[in-house]
Amino acid sequence: MKNKNPLTLIKIGGNIIDNAAELKQFLVDFSKIEGYKVLVHGGGKSATKMAESIGLVPQMIDGRRITDVAMLDVVVMVYAGLINKNIVAQLQANNINAIGFSGADGNLIRSSKRNHPTINYGFVGDVQKVNTVLLETLVTNGIVPVFCAITHDGNGQLLNTNADTIASELAIALSSFFDVTLNYCFEKPGVLFDAEDDNSVIEKINPELYSRLKAEKAIHSGMIPKLDNCFNSLSKGVQKIKIGHHRMLQDTNAVFTSIQL
Amino acid sequence: MKNKNPLTLIKIGGNIIDNAAELKQFLVDFSKIEGYKVLVHGGGKSATKMAESIGLVPQMIDGRRITDVAMLDVVVMVYAGLINKNIVAQLQANNINAIGFSGADGNLIRSSKRNHPTINYGFVGDVQKVNTVLLETLVTNGIVPVFCAITHDGNGQLLNTNADTIASELAIALSSFFDVTLNYCFEKPGVLFDAEDDNSVIEKINPELYSRLKAEKAIHSGMIPKLDNCFNSLSKGVQKIKIGHHRMLQDTNAVFTSIQL
Repeated sequence: MKNKNPLTLIKIGGNIIDNAAELKQFLVDFSKIEGYKVLVHGGGKSATKMAESIGLVPQMIDGRRITDVAMLDVVVMVYAGLINKNIVAQLQANNINAIGFSGADGNLIRSSKRNHPTINYGFVGDVQKVNTVLLETLVTNGIVPVFCAITHDGNGQLLNTNADTIASELAIALSSFFDVTLNYCFEKPGVLFDAEDDNSVIEKINPELYSRLKAEKAIHSGMIPKLDNCFNSLSKGVQKIKIGHHRMLQDTNAVFTSIQL
Repeated sequence: MKNKNPLTLIKIGGNIIDNAAELKQFLVDFSKIEGYKVLVHGGGKSATKMAESIGLVPQMIDGRRITDVAMLDVVVMVYAGLINKNIVAQLQANNINAIGFSGADGNLIRSSKRNHPTINYGFVGDVQKVNTVLLETLVTNGIVPVFCAITHDGNGQLLNTNADTIASELAIALSSFFDVTLNYCFEKPGVLFDAEDDNSVIEKINPELYSRLKAEKAIHSGMIPKLDNCFNSLSKGVQKIKIGHHRMLQDTNAVFTSIQL
């Protein structure tokens, strides 16, 4: 079997996006990464701020935004417009040939509107299918895709979608063609034994340790879907997963959490 | 010399974008056009409405928006986010493999910030360079590009750019590879002898007639830059230019104005 080329997929969240100086530095570091790469970004606080400034009251259930029609317009504007295009323009300035995508563009990520028995999430999508062939063509032709967390249902409806899930679904799809390393960058240096102590990074988590940490309630609610995503991705072909602060991308001495089967 | 393949480039403006039912019908008609095609859209009134709803007061000089930092954020959100992604999602529902682009994406349209001796337009860009090679690759691989009127300067700055100019610059660039027909769709059935009479469409305008109409002041201010763009495009290789209501795309009996050298 032929060796696959490496590909680095990075997901960044609000802590980077909400800080212009930190975002700029991250994009410089990202630009220096060699080989094929893909960026997925969350939304940060700007959508909430924009919603408030036009008089909408954001609602959240279990860390997920309830997306009515007005809020969908706001997240599409902020994620696919403001944040995505500013990231792309900065990457171009760093000589990276980025193209920004929603899942509607090129039919790259099709999702279905969430149908929950008790909670009406509104216009929220669960990923169904990645257009892997087009994505592979773009990447091998020197394009660096930059994904925002907006997808579509194939019938003309845009849908708000969890950025962590988009990152893991893209990583799984790309692992047919590449050796994919998936990096989740957030405000902490990794998954912590003690949420209050940044020096308590768990350097490796395998399924056994994960079960034990969950049983001991050492891992808190927001981290559980993230880690579930990770183990799902590894079982479906993703080579490596790292969770940590984005300094791990450049600083070889930085600690981070490695997720392993 | 080898015959070039035909390509249809269509620019739509606010009259279509501001009317959901009309936009939907236009996109159905657009989807039926055979062969290679490209769509360029303006912004309509939604950017002005959004700006007002967050307390900004839009300013215009000679039909061009004065774009300060806050207004730039609004036009990027509305044009590149809300309008562009909704158009792309609807085209996907019509089985058209559309990708939405700003000029920053793929470095497709680089512009320079306008430097006017007396008027400070703010973050407004004049087109400098189209990445023709990437655009041709996308189009011949079955992608239908959908451009909003946002470009970038190559140094990380997004710039608000006239959509008519983007359409003509893309048409010129694409005419190296294709026989390009450029269609400007607006609320009238064509360029009118009498602005009050929709039955007074001028069916053909050549440079001689254009000079005469300008001298007689039969052509009003907003139409002059549009027609200047047209003659410039024709002199640089664009095959055909039509100006009219979007019904001309499907209705073979519809009148329209043909611009000819």
